[in-house]
Amino acid sequence: MKEVLEKSLTMDDRPGPVAIAGRDYPPIERKAATFDPKVLQLLLDGLHAEIRNSVKQLVSQPEFRYYDGTDVATYRKQVLAWTKRLAATGIGRVFMPRSLGGEENLPKFIAAFETLAFHDISLVIKLGVQFGLFAGSIQRLGTEYHHRKYLPDATSTALMGCFAMTEIGHGSNVQSLETIAVYQRENDYFVLHSPTYSAGKNYIGNAAEDGQLAVVFAQLEVNGQIHGVHAFLVPIRDGDGRPLPGVTIEDNGLKMGLNGVDNGQIWFDHVQVPRVEMLNRFADVTAGGHYRSGIQSQAARFFTMIGTLVSGRISIAATANSAAKSALTIAIRYAARRRQFGSPKAGRETLILDYPAHQRRLCPLVAKAFALDFALKHLIELNETVHAGNSRSLETLAAGLKAVTTWNATQTIQTCREACGGEGYLATNRISALKADTDIYTTFEGDNTVLMQLVAKNLLSEFKDRLKEMRPAQMAGFFIDQRLAALAKRNPRHTFNIRPGHLRDADFQITMFRFRESAALFSAAQEFHRLTSKKRLDQYAAFARMQRELLDLAHAHVERVILERFDQMIATVQVQSLKPVLKRLCDLFALSQIEFNKGWYLEHGALTGLKSRAVTREVDKLCREIRQEAVQLVDSFGIPDSCLAAPIAL
Amino acid sequence: MKEVLEKSLTMDDRPGPVAIAGRDYPPIERKAATFDPKVLQLLLDGLHAEIRNSVKQLVSQPEFRYYDGTDVATYRKQVLAWTKRLAATGIGRVFMPRSLGGEENLPKFIAAFETLAFHDISLVIKLGVQFGLFAGSIQRLGTEYHHRKYLPDATSTALMGCFAMTEIGHGSNVQSLETIAVYQRENDYFVLHSPTYSAGKNYIGNAAEDGQLAVVFAQLEVNGQIHGVHAFLVPIRDGDGRPLPGVTIEDNGLKMGLNGVDNGQIWFDHVQVPRVEMLNRFADVTAGGHYRSGIQSQAARFFTMIGTLVSGRISIAATANSAAKSALTIAIRYAARRRQFGSPKAGRETLILDYPAHQRRLCPLVAKAFALDFALKHLIELNETVHAGNSRSLETLAAGLKAVTTWNATQTIQTCREACGGEGYLATNRISALKADTDIYTTFEGDNTVLMQLVAKNLLSEFKDRLKEMRPAQMAGFFIDQRLAALAKRNPRHTFNIRPGHLRDADFQITMFRFRESAALFSAAQEFHRLTSKKRLDQYAAFARMQRELLDLAHAHVERVILERFDQMIATVQVQSLKPVLKRLCDLFALSQIEFNKGWYLEHGALTGLKSRAVTREVDKLCREIRQEAVQLVDSFGIPDSCLAAPIAL
Repeated sequence: MKEVLEKSLTMDDRPGPVAIAGRDYPPIERKAATFDPKVLQLLLDGLHAEIRNSVKQLVSQPEFRYYDGTDVATYRKQVLAWTKRLAATGIGRVFMPRSLGGEENLPKFIAAFETLAFHDISLVIKLGVQFGLFAGSIQRLGTEYHHRKYLPDATSTALMGCFAMTEIGHGSNVQSLETIAVYQRENDYFVLHSPTYSAGKNYIGNAAEDGQLAVVFAQLEVNGQIHGVHAFLVPIRDGDGRPLPGVTIEDNGLKMGLNGVDNGQIWFDHVQVPRVEMLNRFADVTAGGHYRSGIQSQAARFFTMIGTLVSGRISIAATANSAAKSALTIAIRYAARRRQFGSPKAGRETLILDYPAHQRRLCPLVAKAFALDFALKHLIELNETVHAGNSRSLETLAAGLKAVTTWNATQTIQTCREACGGEGYLATNRISALKADTDIYTTFEGDNTVLMQLVAKNLLSEFKDRLKEMRPAQMAGFFIDQRLAALAKRNPRHTFNIRPGHLRDADFQITMFRFRESAALFSAAQEFHRLTSKKRLDQYAAFARMQRELLDLAHAHVERVILERFDQMIATVQVQSLKPVLKRLCDLFALSQIEFNKGWYLEHGALTGLKSRAVTREVDKLCREIRQEAVQLVDSFGIPDSCLAAPIAL
Repeated sequence: MKEVLEKSLTMDDRPGPVAIAGRDYPPIERKAATFDPKVLQLLLDGLHAEIRNSVKQLVSQPEFRYYDGTDVATYRKQVLAWTKRLAATGIGRVFMPRSLGGEENLPKFIAAFETLAFHDISLVIKLGVQFGLFAGSIQRLGTEYHHRKYLPDATSTALMGCFAMTEIGHGSNVQSLETIAVYQRENDYFVLHSPTYSAGKNYIGNAAEDGQLAVVFAQLEVNGQIHGVHAFLVPIRDGDGRPLPGVTIEDNGLKMGLNGVDNGQIWFDHVQVPRVEMLNRFADVTAGGHYRSGIQSQAARFFTMIGTLVSGRISIAATANSAAKSALTIAIRYAARRRQFGSPKAGRETLILDYPAHQRRLCPLVAKAFALDFALKHLIELNETVHAGNSRSLETLAAGLKAVTTWNATQTIQTCREACGGEGYLATNRISALKADTDIYTTFEGDNTVLMQLVAKNLLSEFKDRLKEMRPAQMAGFFIDQRLAALAKRNPRHTFNIRPGHLRDADFQITMFRFRESAALFSAAQEFHRLTSKKRLDQYAAFARMQRELLDLAHAHVERVILERFDQMIATVQVQSLKPVLKRLCDLFALSQIEFNKGWYLEHGALTGLKSRAVTREVDKLCREIRQEAVQLVDSFGIPDSCLAAPIAL
């Protein structure tokens, strides 16, 4: 290549029929914007700029150069080496308990994780398995014995571990896992066992090669009684990396992406585990074979333990948004340099970013990346302030934002690939890896469709609780209020006003989002009532029948939260110079969502055809405005060139 | 794995808390349907069942076992060997001219190609490059000298070739290629030259390793005058596979998919080519250095030559739909066996295909695969009957169906991946390869967004021509008719009637699709008029400004054609027993498109909110109906198990 480039300089410079495309490096796009990208980056970096900067500095070192081969064994070794290198910086101590010398600072840890996701996603997942899932579950489900015995080595990676929950037969329905742990009073051990093929643990990170110890989720049986799913620490490999007796491990083999992570399957054949190796924070078995738990209901216990997945979901969502940002940075920078077609009069071709269709593809996704960033910051804060027991709203938001953010990442990366044409298909331009690595995000840590149903069911439960707490008179008033509110939302001002000033009014936008959510909530509640009362279906059958309504409600809810958070961010931001651009981004997010849902609004008489078309025109206009600052907006994501790596983005 | 399976048989059979999931092979789904899948398959196979069956038989041989490694060099060798094996069957003769002993049967060739796309897509593309693009362009752009000299070896693969059109600087805007071919009278040669780096040919299949001869598209210069893009046959490698003097080749390296194809870049440094090696069917240069062409305008000549891309676009669309069918077969079979969650009363978990949300994801895509199949059959017929000169409608439909089918394939495969959860992410289950290999389909053979604009511009030109041919009085009448027609479409019956019988009435559906197309056409024509007359923009600037309107029009047009073809297929199908299921599929296609576009219909007063919601309920209902026969529907695609290969689909 080098020779060709050198040669091309000596080639005669006869111009083609239209001026040469794609060579004006660096782009002339970084002219004065209404804001300073560095200042906007400070806002995005938030409280934890310091650890973000250290992570960037580290992964920009030559030893973190991407592995660009295709050999899975080599790639896994590379990712393991990177994992150990990162652990050596003490990153694992950030979230460790203070009692063990840690900082107990999860938001800081997530910030590091989110930054790392600008680099290799296999590394992110490998670290997530080791620190978030393996060490994290020991911390949250275990007690001091487990903390002292395992956490120092887990956080230093001296002890590599697995989080063995999912089974071949049970992914989403974890409550029905088949692996069983039977307490044997005679020797004070549990016997861990996989009774069937489908009881094998599946897709377990670190299982195929590196894992030495596994947190295994299994049905606990004591004295013939099943107490539901509990977690046990089970050694799976000896010092030489061979599976221990009774443990069968299969490699999951080649995957679409994340091939730097060694996923595998694990079966247990009557493996004996000392009683103290049960993670006993929420339930325990005594030496005498008595089962004890502070949480009476088996279901409540299960959900408390599963609650440890919340941090995982938050981290996954945050890293998914990082991947979307990387793809957008590549696609916007390419579009601000690549020319194709053009008016014969112009002398040179048109930048593809100047085509309205291209702006329409990319600009709303830039706005959404910002919107999700702010919503995730709120979720991370919420995760700090909410404590177990009162955690339904946290669980709801974590599930909803995980689903919406990961779906958005998939869609964004796909759009960016197409927007970069053939260049987007070459491995060297990185979109390929972003796409393949994050594709599973919509499935793992909870399948998105299942999570969105959880969101809706939680909202319906809250609604029911709110109704329950009311006296009959209050309730009647409440319904009348809701009805009035609904009518108000259809007032002529909101339905007919098509002035841009009105369309960009936060009150109008938020009212529209709230109306959609409350209408979806009412309609789902009514449908549930109809199915369970009139049709006499049980709760399970009713929910199964009304999945479409549940998914509509969940989307409406999550979108409303995102918009409100964005609006609040604009209201509270200290730097005045950022307000205009943030407001434009928020308007584009709000109006393109209204446009996307215009069918619903029109169906419900909340928009007229005239106004709906005005929204479309306003989205066009906002895309043109955002296009002017698009390069600076993606600059503000602060992704190091060494991470982007894509030649078309540099 | 074998040991584990054997062992699992001897494991004690203690059932998990819910019956074991995912093991009831074969599915109990193949109960009596309203139709015989084998009969439906005959309909899909059409006239060319024989070659489809031979291709299936061939690729089911052990030598065609998928390469499941990651080494690019090995994979390329494997694909080359398969290519040669297929060529040895004489498949290349199917489309060759009769004068050279061929069958000149393009539809049969496309049928073979479409079937082959159930197997490895790299092989499809390698064959497409060699036969469709390389040999095909020699056939269509060359004359007898070129046919006799090259076609026998090209179709036998004794001579491997490239189709070198796209350049680094010019993908979509081919008319502005930079490579230049200057005629030298003194020695009767052309000098082929890449004046700049960006003039390098890019993404050229067969370039990196196997190609010996290239069809090179370059600006022709004779006596200092540029005549536009013409094609030249240029040897690029010697007998030992080394690039010839003056030819610089770079490997495009690793790609997201299609790594069995050796794409590369080519630069020419004053390479001499004898005059007779110009493909001279549409234009020629005499020994005296005179340029001659039967087509006067440079643009018309260019589009005639580019017209050879039409067959490529048809083939690409057909193979994209095959890939979508493979993914659907895998996802539907998995969903008809995989159980997750369920009513505690039921004793076993629920099949995921029984969840409405899952039906909603997959069933409309099954219907769309059928709809596109029939539309593509129509396009292939049209390609046989239409001859150059009168080919605008063919060009329009080929461009539109290429775009719509490839976008649909991307969306279908993505949805199937998610619908198969973690299993969909494992390479062994094949969706990963389908996704990665077909992702570039939306870009190559014409970027979809560019093609859809071509569709809309053609429709506007036709519209203009129709108006031109009218006398003023006729024209006034025409506009009045259109206005009346538009009003008629908003008649109360269509706007308010929500009876299922009405919603499933082909007349209603077609009226709705036609209304949308004609409204989009009028609105685009008006906008064009406004921009060029009132705003005084030139044609280029006007089209660039109204891209949204153009894309809307193109979608509306292609969808209308697809629906009409589906409807006509049902009307003319001989086998009565197939009519009901075809009608259900057509209804699902039509109503889910109306639902998808409900925002537009509501905006334009062509649907009421009440009716729009009735459409949604009818789509729900149709999904439940199609679900009953879903397994048989995908069986009727007739994909060999050896091609599917996915353990979750067998």
